[in-house]
Amino acid sequence: MPVITILTETELRQLVPLDIAAVDCVEAAFRALDTGNVVMPPVLSMAIPEFNGEVDVKTAYVPGIDSFALKVSPGFFDNPAIGLPSTSGLMILFSARTGMLQSMLLDNGYLTDIRTAAAGAVAARHLAREDAHTAAILGAGTQARFQLQALCLVRPITQARVWARNPAAAHSFAAEQSQVLGIPVAAHDTAQTAVSGADVIITTTPATKPLLTAGWLAPGQHITAMGSDQHTKAELDPACLTRADLYVPDRLSQTRTMGELRTAIAAGLLANDTTFPELGAIVAGSAPGRTHPDQITIADLTGTGIQDTAIATHARSRAKAAGIGTEFES
Amino acid sequence: MPVITILTETELRQLVPLDIAAVDCVEAAFRALDTGNVVMPPVLSMAIPEFNGEVDVKTAYVPGIDSFALKVSPGFFDNPAIGLPSTSGLMILFSARTGMLQSMLLDNGYLTDIRTAAAGAVAARHLAREDAHTAAILGAGTQARFQLQALCLVRPITQARVWARNPAAAHSFAAEQSQVLGIPVAAHDTAQTAVSGADVIITTTPATKPLLTAGWLAPGQHITAMGSDQHTKAELDPACLTRADLYVPDRLSQTRTMGELRTAIAAGLLANDTTFPELGAIVAGSAPGRTHPDQITIADLTGTGIQDTAIATHARSRAKAAGIGTEFES
Repeated sequence: MPVITILTETELRQLVPLDIAAVDCVEAAFRALDTGNVVMPPVLSMAIPEFNGEVDVKTAYVPGIDSFALKVSPGFFDNPAIGLPSTSGLMILFSARTGMLQSMLLDNGYLTDIRTAAAGAVAARHLAREDAHTAAILGAGTQARFQLQALCLVRPITQARVWARNPAAAHSFAAEQSQVLGIPVAAHDTAQTAVSGADVIITTTPATKPLLTAGWLAPGQHITAMGSDQHTKAELDPACLTRADLYVPDRLSQTRTMGELRTAIAAGLLANDTTFPELGAIVAGSAPGRTHPDQITIADLTGTGIQDTAIATHARSRAKAAGIGTEFES
Repeated sequence: MPVITILTETELRQLVPLDIAAVDCVEAAFRALDTGNVVMPPVLSMAIPEFNGEVDVKTAYVPGIDSFALKVSPGFFDNPAIGLPSTSGLMILFSARTGMLQSMLLDNGYLTDIRTAAAGAVAARHLAREDAHTAAILGAGTQARFQLQALCLVRPITQARVWARNPAAAHSFAAEQSQVLGIPVAAHDTAQTAVSGADVIITTTPATKPLLTAGWLAPGQHITAMGSDQHTKAELDPACLTRADLYVPDRLSQTRTMGELRTAIAAGLLANDTTFPELGAIVAGSAPGRTHPDQITIADLTGTGIQDTAIATHARSRAKAAGIGTEFES
């Protein structure tokens, strides 16, 4: 009988903190994406309108990684009214050589938070100025916290600003993250003052209308927009994309339909078939990243199955090394 | 922390035998399919050519069933050379109201065998003559066994014939199933003699070229073709479909692209937009099934996510009632 390993959220939080190893494993997966041998099918998506729910399934095979992850992400938006989180889910790891089930990672979405923040760090590593020291975060949720922490791993950030639609959430974020990171984090009343003078701007909201205006952008800034992952969402004024010197999608086929690129195409600012080097090409060195300190750069992150495969494999390898997890004979 | 239930293959084999309750739960799901409120996204499919593998993911929401299953079916065809089965996999059950993970069914494909055979019984119940007593099975694998057993649950079968490409497999099937079912089961050297005089013909092979010829068919016969579930497979001579009085797909959108209908369209015998009542419509009574003893009927079964949701929910409910399974806090 096959033996599988089950890892709980508690174990995974202990095994897979947001650290440079998590960033590196996600970066390696983006590098593999540029080789052209990655297999990443379109997302399986099922809506259950009766209960205001949806479930997305992502997977990807990355050559060189011996396992592939299948990630199931349910989002049920009436849950908070009955005391449950809106999002939950798990990752399942299979051998890429035999298809046999290896591990169940009952992370309730935690690993997605980590691999998403790690992709932000990968983008900053290749696109933000090396001396970037001021960060502006739009949004004050869980991912806002992880994105700021991930950025601090790869750039010498000495201060941060935060703006959120809910001012109380921004103040609470600022107080908490000042403590966590040991740097001043200030809550701002407007997105405009928050981003003014920032070297790196990260948008981490579920906005459906732009909250970052192109006219606010200044030479040298890098923007990571990671909130939009559906055809209904948008965080950037579409003109940001034409104002930028370099626009970098995580996966062009995805950002065209559910990222910031979608709204720029819809606004008629860019043609539907305009191509851009993907983050993987820049990581791999087959396309240039930032080449001048004054450039404005944008990373448009919609989330990819390769990140799931990377982080799930990383988690399994850490669990094995630490002897953590419950073995189960199926 | 959420509590989930894990069920192993051994437990599932004990809890979910191929019985009339399994047939009824799959029939109820087909009935729901006809209401139009079922949500069944296209199959997510990922090939890993490097290791001669593929993985398919199916899911469906069936109104009236409080859970939905997600089924992961890996097929890695070099596995037998290293002593592993080609197919494996599991089903995962989520609450349809909250998306929360409920159960992991580590069935290694067993529940798929059951729900596939159950669909064959549903087809026979509505399409085969009520007095059908002779069955012919083409193919001698696991599903051939389950299909014959399922047929015996819904029709008064008193004898069976089996033909397989490998004669030894057919003889072994015949000896074994005679014992299991307590009826004479004879191995035939040719498919033609096996089907001659049979009331129900079931094709259960991975054939890529037709093995049932239209000229062999006789009035009153019912054929269930369940082997073809990919655009490369075919078991019926395309002319069988025009020779039949009634052709019934499990899901028209699927049989057009991966069932027997695909080859009939490719042969120019039927237009791509020809419509046929689905099995669900016949079960629900919104389209007629067999209306005369002399009709020739064909059921084209490609396998649907609703069957997975139905059987997985049935398994969970049996497990709860029996107090079987391992609870796990995630």
